[in-house]
Amino acid sequence: PAKAKSRRLRWDVKASDMANSTLNPIRAIVDGMKLTPNKDKAMIALSIGDPTVFGNLPTDEAVLQAMRDAVDSHKFNGYAPSVGYLRSRQAVANFYSCPEASLEAEDVILTSGCSQAIELVIGVLCNPGDNILVPCPGFSLYKTLAVSMGIKVKLYNLLPEKSWEVDLQHMESLIDERTSCLIVTNPSNPCGSVFSRDHVQKILKVASKHCVPILADEIYSDMVFPGCSCPSIASLSSDVPILSCGGLAKRWLVPGWRMGWILIHDRNDVLGSEIRQGLVKLSQRILGACTIVQGALENILNNTPQSFYSKTISFLKSNSEICFGELSTVPGLNPVMPSGAMYLMVGIDMDHFPGFKNDVDFTEQLVTEQSVFCLPASAFEYPNFFRIVVTVPEEMMVEACARIREFCQRHYRPRSCDSSDLEQ
Amino acid sequence: PAKAKSRRLRWDVKASDMANSTLNPIRAIVDGMKLTPNKDKAMIALSIGDPTVFGNLPTDEAVLQAMRDAVDSHKFNGYAPSVGYLRSRQAVANFYSCPEASLEAEDVILTSGCSQAIELVIGVLCNPGDNILVPCPGFSLYKTLAVSMGIKVKLYNLLPEKSWEVDLQHMESLIDERTSCLIVTNPSNPCGSVFSRDHVQKILKVASKHCVPILADEIYSDMVFPGCSCPSIASLSSDVPILSCGGLAKRWLVPGWRMGWILIHDRNDVLGSEIRQGLVKLSQRILGACTIVQGALENILNNTPQSFYSKTISFLKSNSEICFGELSTVPGLNPVMPSGAMYLMVGIDMDHFPGFKNDVDFTEQLVTEQSVFCLPASAFEYPNFFRIVVTVPEEMMVEACARIREFCQRHYRPRSCDSSDLEQ
Ligand SMILES: Cc1ncc(COP(=O)(O)O)c(C=O)c1O
Ligand SMILES: Cc1ncc(COP(=O)(O)O)c(C=O)c1O
Repeated sequence: PAKAKSRRLRWDVKASDMANSTLNPIRAIVDGMKLTPNKDKAMIALSIGDPTVFGNLPTDEAVLQAMRDAVDSHKFNGYAPSVGYLRSRQAVANFYSCPEASLEAEDVILTSGCSQAIELVIGVLCNPGDNILVPCPGFSLYKTLAVSMGIKVKLYNLLPEKSWEVDLQHMESLIDERTSCLIVTNPSNPCGSVFSRDHVQKILKVASKHCVPILADEIYSDMVFPGCSCPSIASLSSDVPILSCGGLAKRWLVPGWRMGWILIHDRNDVLGSEIRQGLVKLSQRILGACTIVQGALENILNNTPQSFYSKTISFLKSNSEICFGELSTVPGLNPVMPSGAMYLMVGIDMDHFPGFKNDVDFTEQLVTEQSVFCLPASAFEYPNFFRIVVTVPEEMMVEACARIREFCQRHYRPRSCDSSDLEQ
Repeated sequence: PAKAKSRRLRWDVKASDMANSTLNPIRAIVDGMKLTPNKDKAMIALSIGDPTVFGNLPTDEAVLQAMRDAVDSHKFNGYAPSVGYLRSRQAVANFYSCPEASLEAEDVILTSGCSQAIELVIGVLCNPGDNILVPCPGFSLYKTLAVSMGIKVKLYNLLPEKSWEVDLQHMESLIDERTSCLIVTNPSNPCGSVFSRDHVQKILKVASKHCVPILADEIYSDMVFPGCSCPSIASLSSDVPILSCGGLAKRWLVPGWRMGWILIHDRNDVLGSEIRQGLVKLSQRILGACTIVQGALENILNNTPQSFYSKTISFLKSNSEICFGELSTVPGLNPVMPSGAMYLMVGIDMDHFPGFKNDVDFTEQLVTEQSVFCLPASAFEYPNFFRIVVTVPEEMMVEACARIREFCQRHYRPRSCDSSDLEQ
């Protein structure tokens, strides 16, 4: 070209805005904490949302056998279609299909974990400048992904006093013409709550009235305590398009395997081919799940015995009851009993703990004194709570609760006092 | 809120701009072709970049055993760090480290296939409005990803008459102050070319002069024919930061497993912590590779026998020679002999084939008459060539070449003629 272009004369490589705006609040908060356990007490981490870390919740032998068979078959080494093998998609469709919300293979897209399912759904529904409605407290990935894509996040409140039901009025008040997606997490991380049929119907009514499609994060589907039912959101709607995200991570206890899926429910054909095509296109960017896991999927879904699921759930329920029972008699703490998933949220009466600035400070000091680490709920945009993961072995749960009690007893001040002079 | 917001009154769910701008040129072209094989001849697809489809190139038993061991260990079911297990990163670092370009575990990021490695590197280096330099002909994913992120693509020419070396002057002329990344694919898809040490040094000189970091797509590294050497790009540079993308897909013949990696070479510390941190942040979006494959990685890299690699390469070389030998005597065709990877490009003297509008038309008719499908190189922005995948069984390769010869003989017109009256 005739005209000399201006070029760089020195090295000056900067990270992109997208990289810089990919913020993980859990990391941001945890990395900023001084976590120095009391060396006289063994560390108990109640913070990690990975049910496999303590070894007490192994996956089922049928799941492992399905993987061995997939390896031995030599059939699953090549590229799969970007949306997954038809047969594996069919297996997922069969597994989740129900009379009220039937599914065909073409309604299923396999992804690299539920995380990629969420990324693809937000990616296909939202443009920069749009906004999405996200539960508060809620799983932080929604915001991380949305903000990095230039999509605004509006948090709608969940109500602890109503077992974390949605504040429907608040949610509805947030909807405007740029609201392109409503995210509903049921059962919930971090709350462990499970919505009643009636409550889901009310949420659907709002979505229907304002014509907002739903991203249903149902990664904890069927992980509900006995006596509690949790129909899929799609099974309760006949008009709202619902993109349900799920995967093997939690229920089958293999989060590292990165097997997720999107179930497309669109009985009134609102989405048309554009959204489906859009999801296919997005899936072609990096392709999805590992073919060995895809090849094992049909057997995993069909051969895992019911007893495996029930065992996990009884354990989670029992641990939740222990934890709730213990902590509900600790002055200054307000645990909320969960009905599913693998979490329990505990409110802190900060008025009674004038020694601490907030939940981050509280949980940091809990590590220092008692070597118990709970995630401060600031990580879920919900200060003055902390989250307990109930997948740890029972004896650890018992011990952790005893230590939390000791810690609270030590720092509890019976009457609320003005904490302002303690700050700074 | 006091003011009534405008809200949607009807369903109107549209795919996002990103989804709509995620364009896969291979799909766009192939889906637009009328591919109706001649039913008297069995179809031979020379189009699929998946070495596993014909069953003649199985992966090594050591690779499968590593997977079985990873499953049986029960150690690789939980979440790995988002950049991969330290031990697996160490194994990759050890495997690729060399005196001129040493690697530590911290220089390795594991990803879901080489595709995600490319996505993360482009994602961390480039902002919307920036441009990247991409080889032409070249692998289409670079453009697909870049365009969907609002990044411009500038194609630099490769020269078929120089065994697909880079037109260095052309490449340099494209660089401006918004050029944030130079992509170099070596060995190349679709060309099968392998740059000499000297040529790589010339490319590095341009990058160094203009301070442009390199994304080295080295997914075909070490897949070079005997007698030809292919040092890694990083091993030849002491100043240019090089993010090398690779994976198990091709050399280990398991593309479906989605195991890729980024090797960060930055001996002058140009990238600083920002780019490394940026890659870590981006890796946290959806997490990377399946933990079973990660768990198997060390054994895969250490236990795969040399004989496996050499066998694959001899096969690819032999098939390339058959194909090149046959097609170079077909009037009107100009095959370019590859030196590695698994592809061979063939030029079409369109002047001698006045019956066809272009490479798409030519390859479409080749299916209709001869049931042989080659990818028209328009899919790589390089019209009037087609690409042959040389991983098919030898007898298929021989048969395909014979049919291509027959096809060309039938349509060849000895002297160039004005094709304009044939068009329309
Ligand atoms: C609510 C929720 N959704 C999605 C995910 C991500 O699942 P995956 O590991 O399959 O990506 C998690 C993981 O903790 C989660 O809690
Ligand atoms: C040059 C090049 N880079 C990257 C890839 C993608 O590799 P993966 O399947 O590991 O994502 C391919 C696949 O064909 C390729 O040819």
